[in-house]
Amino acid sequence: MTQNSITRSWVASANGHTEFPLQNLPLGVFSVEGSAPRAGVAIGEHIFDLQVALEAGLFDGVARSAVEAMRGGQLNAFFELGRDARVALRERLLELFSEGSTHRGNIEAQGAKLLPLAADCQLHLPARISDYTDFYVGIEHAQNVGKLFRPDNPLLPNYKHVPIGYHGRASTVRASGADVRRPKGQTLPAGATEPTFGPCARLDYELELGIWIGQGNEMGEPIAIGDAAEHIAGFCLLNDWSARDIQAWEYQPLGPFLSKSFITSVSPWVVTAEALAPFRTAQPARPQGDPQPLPYLLDKRDQDGGGFDIELEVLLLTEKMREQNLPAHRLTLSNTRYMYWTVAQMVAHHSVNGCQLQAGDLFGSGTLSGPENGQFGSLLEITEGGKKPIELASGEVRKFLEDGDEIILRARCAREGFASIGFGECRGTVLAAR
Amino acid sequence: MTQNSITRSWVASANGHTEFPLQNLPLGVFSVEGSAPRAGVAIGEHIFDLQVALEAGLFDGVARSAVEAMRGGQLNAFFELGRDARVALRERLLELFSEGSTHRGNIEAQGAKLLPLAADCQLHLPARISDYTDFYVGIEHAQNVGKLFRPDNPLLPNYKHVPIGYHGRASTVRASGADVRRPKGQTLPAGATEPTFGPCARLDYELELGIWIGQGNEMGEPIAIGDAAEHIAGFCLLNDWSARDIQAWEYQPLGPFLSKSFITSVSPWVVTAEALAPFRTAQPARPQGDPQPLPYLLDKRDQDGGGFDIELEVLLLTEKMREQNLPAHRLTLSNTRYMYWTVAQMVAHHSVNGCQLQAGDLFGSGTLSGPENGQFGSLLEITEGGKKPIELASGEVRKFLEDGDEIILRARCAREGFASIGFGECRGTVLAAR
Repeated sequence: MTQNSITRSWVASANGHTEFPLQNLPLGVFSVEGSAPRAGVAIGEHIFDLQVALEAGLFDGVARSAVEAMRGGQLNAFFELGRDARVALRERLLELFSEGSTHRGNIEAQGAKLLPLAADCQLHLPARISDYTDFYVGIEHAQNVGKLFRPDNPLLPNYKHVPIGYHGRASTVRASGADVRRPKGQTLPAGATEPTFGPCARLDYELELGIWIGQGNEMGEPIAIGDAAEHIAGFCLLNDWSARDIQAWEYQPLGPFLSKSFITSVSPWVVTAEALAPFRTAQPARPQGDPQPLPYLLDKRDQDGGGFDIELEVLLLTEKMREQNLPAHRLTLSNTRYMYWTVAQMVAHHSVNGCQLQAGDLFGSGTLSGPENGQFGSLLEITEGGKKPIELASGEVRKFLEDGDEIILRARCAREGFASIGFGECRGTVLAAR
Repeated sequence: MTQNSITRSWVASANGHTEFPLQNLPLGVFSVEGSAPRAGVAIGEHIFDLQVALEAGLFDGVARSAVEAMRGGQLNAFFELGRDARVALRERLLELFSEGSTHRGNIEAQGAKLLPLAADCQLHLPARISDYTDFYVGIEHAQNVGKLFRPDNPLLPNYKHVPIGYHGRASTVRASGADVRRPKGQTLPAGATEPTFGPCARLDYELELGIWIGQGNEMGEPIAIGDAAEHIAGFCLLNDWSARDIQAWEYQPLGPFLSKSFITSVSPWVVTAEALAPFRTAQPARPQGDPQPLPYLLDKRDQDGGGFDIELEVLLLTEKMREQNLPAHRLTLSNTRYMYWTVAQMVAHHSVNGCQLQAGDLFGSGTLSGPENGQFGSLLEITEGGKKPIELASGEVRKFLEDGDEIILRARCAREGFASIGFGECRGTVLAAR
């Protein structure tokens, strides 16, 4: 794939400081003033309307089929087409938007195709999500949380053998910007033996990488680890909002349920594997003494290049900070390199029992904390379960999230000699319980 | 709703010994020799093709809208219409098929509408399942399984306060008849410290009641316990096939995952709340000393009539038994009265945090074991985790399921003065691992 930092675009805002240079070209679904949602690609400060471009005859062959599959305003059928369609579309978009492109006049003449991203465009979920699975591959998070419950034995014996995951709720995944209504539920107050019912008092965020599944598999036919990367359509940011007090009371023996299912937020742009290619890394070496993965999880190509170097950031903005025009407070600066398992290992594991994955399924990585202060991906870890409140420039303190608080996830990839790319934001503001 | 045991039908097979008398009228989706799936209703030994009947002008008003909503061969839009549409359709069907109906000639003249159920009809999932949730409300099962792990403390402290549930895998729910490919996965052999990979050696069934959700709710707007029954479209049988060895190794700390997601089978007919009305019972009294449910789970009408008296049965048929023409071996004879929580309590709990339910969502009750031998709803309980094999008339023994074994779930409701109704079967045969 063409991925050259000196390739510039005739779209001025795609050059220089932007999350969406020509090398990114993330795909999404948007609408303008109540129109039907349709597919687009982000470039600089604009959205390129793929439907209008299709009708204007700008796509041929495989790239045309790719855009045709996006009709109906959901990317599922496009995801199902797999890598070839994605690559053909990307190559055509690079042609259309490169500096000196002979198509510039043609595109500019139909100005409606390049819509200002900031203004009237509303972004939607890119796909219909059939199933959502949340993993737990952030080993530092697993250790930090484990320590709170089991100081001597933070990691359970299966952790380094099994890419632990569980089924999440698909119906309440929402695109960035959706408000987060504080949930009510049962909790067991400290020292009590009977639960009480009321608004969650320990509302938290979780910083995760989201993974969009591309081509699915037939039920009963596992995806081999060597093929797994081919089944991933792209990536996003995911906030696995969590009600810690509800979680602590409900989760035994079958896992988290209502503590997570009130909302899950994702950034709306699908950043493709092709855009992320320069930011691939080797899977970080397992510490001395850690077990080798079982053969169904082991692939040399995956070990050599199945990791990512993506910087992840979480910001908090309270109502008072907004009133006082204070900048957002950085809660977390972490990285995808803290994943103990690769995304290919997640796909291979999920399907090894014959479970059917489908185009548009969503995976969450699990919280991606680093080992140090400042790298923790949830307030549970930062405040040690509420014991060490954080202080904000507004004079406020926080153990957990208060009504009016906004959480903003961001991600960026940078590498010498390559254009830096970003993911766009995943935002959500907490509303008071009903 | 008309529910009178002396009402007979002019369809001869609907009278006398049948699961589908005039009083049942369960809805489903079927196809004939590769035709597109379409909605039908079971009556005696026949399926009444609702699409053909619609086109023949047999429905008016609300009943007509109900059948129109079934176009496309999925009942989701019909479920979303709620109780009124279901009741109007039922009343019209009772009119059409009652003995002495003036419509008999009209229907018989178009013979194609009454198709023989046994012959060429293939039955499908009745709805597109957006989310599948598995509960754990069978208290005897929770106690039996708990005893295997924690002899002194079988029930966890939250059990009698929280209708425990967890998210299941929607993509692998299949209609009765789908084969069950033995899954592979990681297991920890007894005494070992490192897992091995291979075919599941402890394959099990779980006997559950399935619940089809009707009208959904908006995200953030809980369904009150008093309204919850209105959000249920109907019922089925559900086999939550389970790989016990995979489950034991993977389930900490986030719950069952691959041990359940290889397949879940449901009986294809949706038995409506109206058909089950005569078999409603009071919610069985909580034993002395059990806590009262929290107010959001408590409703007098639900306590008085939110239970069911449905007899549940599980049969095993091995390859050898089929060869020797032996009758199926009964593994379980249980009843829905062993549910500690009502279906209305499940709906109210699931949505109390604002989680959105959608028409066509599927709930499983959790395994419905009784307290006595012969009433256990899984081999895990019957054989005490493989320690006490069962003996079959074929001379075979079973700790868990072997390749070629078929499991058949059945259910029937009987009450003096009322026609007995059944659910149809939920079958599945185990195939060797690939």
